[in-house]
Amino acid sequence: MGSPEHVTIVAGHEGRWRIDLNRASLGQALPYAKRLEIVEGAWARPEGAAWVLRGFASNTRYTTADERARLRAVSPALGRSEATSAALIPIRKSPAWWDLAQDERRRILEEDSRHISIGAEYLTDIARRLLHCRDLGEPFDFLTWFEYPPHASGAFEELVARLRATREWGYVEHEIDIRLTRDPV
Amino acid sequence: MGSPEHVTIVAGHEGRWRIDLNRASLGQALPYAKRLEIVEGAWARPEGAAWVLRGFASNTRYTTADERARLRAVSPALGRSEATSAALIPIRKSPAWWDLAQDERRRILEEDSRHISIGAEYLTDIARRLLHCRDLGEPFDFLTWFEYPPHASGAFEELVARLRATREWGYVEHEIDIRLTRDPV
Repeated sequence: MGSPEHVTIVAGHEGRWRIDLNRASLGQALPYAKRLEIVEGAWARPEGAAWVLRGFASNTRYTTADERARLRAVSPALGRSEATSAALIPIRKSPAWWDLAQDERRRILEEDSRHISIGAEYLTDIARRLLHCRDLGEPFDFLTWFEYPPHASGAFEELVARLRATREWGYVEHEIDIRLTRDPV
Repeated sequence: MGSPEHVTIVAGHEGRWRIDLNRASLGQALPYAKRLEIVEGAWARPEGAAWVLRGFASNTRYTTADERARLRAVSPALGRSEATSAALIPIRKSPAWWDLAQDERRRILEEDSRHISIGAEYLTDIARRLLHCRDLGEPFDFLTWFEYPPHASGAFEELVARLRATREWGYVEHEIDIRLTRDPV
């Protein structure tokens, strides 16, 4: 098991990632910021940030063993040198979603909306990291971070558009779109 | 949704609950303490406590809609005046458990071990609250709190013995048994 991965995302004047786009798809926007940094380890409360989001990596909540094996076979690592584009998509789902039982959420997420299957189609280029934050009392339920080479940005926007058209996305009530770039290492 | 329920369990010299038993079933024991208090709201870091455990209530992770409806129909509330006995069972499961996929964990928990079904047999007398803490980096994964009238203590010990005999419990690697009483209100 090891320690859980605690992550703080800090937006402000500094950071490896330059923020190219920061807009609300649904609900209230996040304040303007120029750059973003991802801080691993104990949750930080940095001074002077434009905004700060905290989350943790956790065990999978919906993926079956078969699905996980297929995902692992095609998932690239984070931090590839060619992956100089990134996206951060904080979302909050509605009380109606959280009031569903496990089998109901699973059915909407995969059997109806093909969330896992659609995502898997794009994984050879796009690395993904899911952070949970609802249980911390944060303003969002999830922070999803994606990293990809610039040539995959069209595929990434297609992935986002397909997921937004699903029944599952009807339960999303707050969603922010952030796109970022960094200099090649 | 509302805010998540954040809970701090504080053991020391004070508190509504008197600790009658505090022993390790598996793994290292918790230090001796006389009394225990449950603090709701923002996680507290009280001074001078013998030990402190933190957790959060969250959405259900395994229960189906049908199971949940059956559980809700028979679950008593916490805080009943006659429920002057309580148990706190902090547990940590092994890395092997957390490395299982969702469908594998569900199958062991309910289809093999009947965790939800066995628990439901005892619910008319025994109120139950599950707190999660693994994602916080706490020493345990779960804190389960039970409240019952003294006449149900035999039934409660039977419930615990039946769950400990299951395949699921083979994944438990640290478990503490705490029994408590409070004065009638």
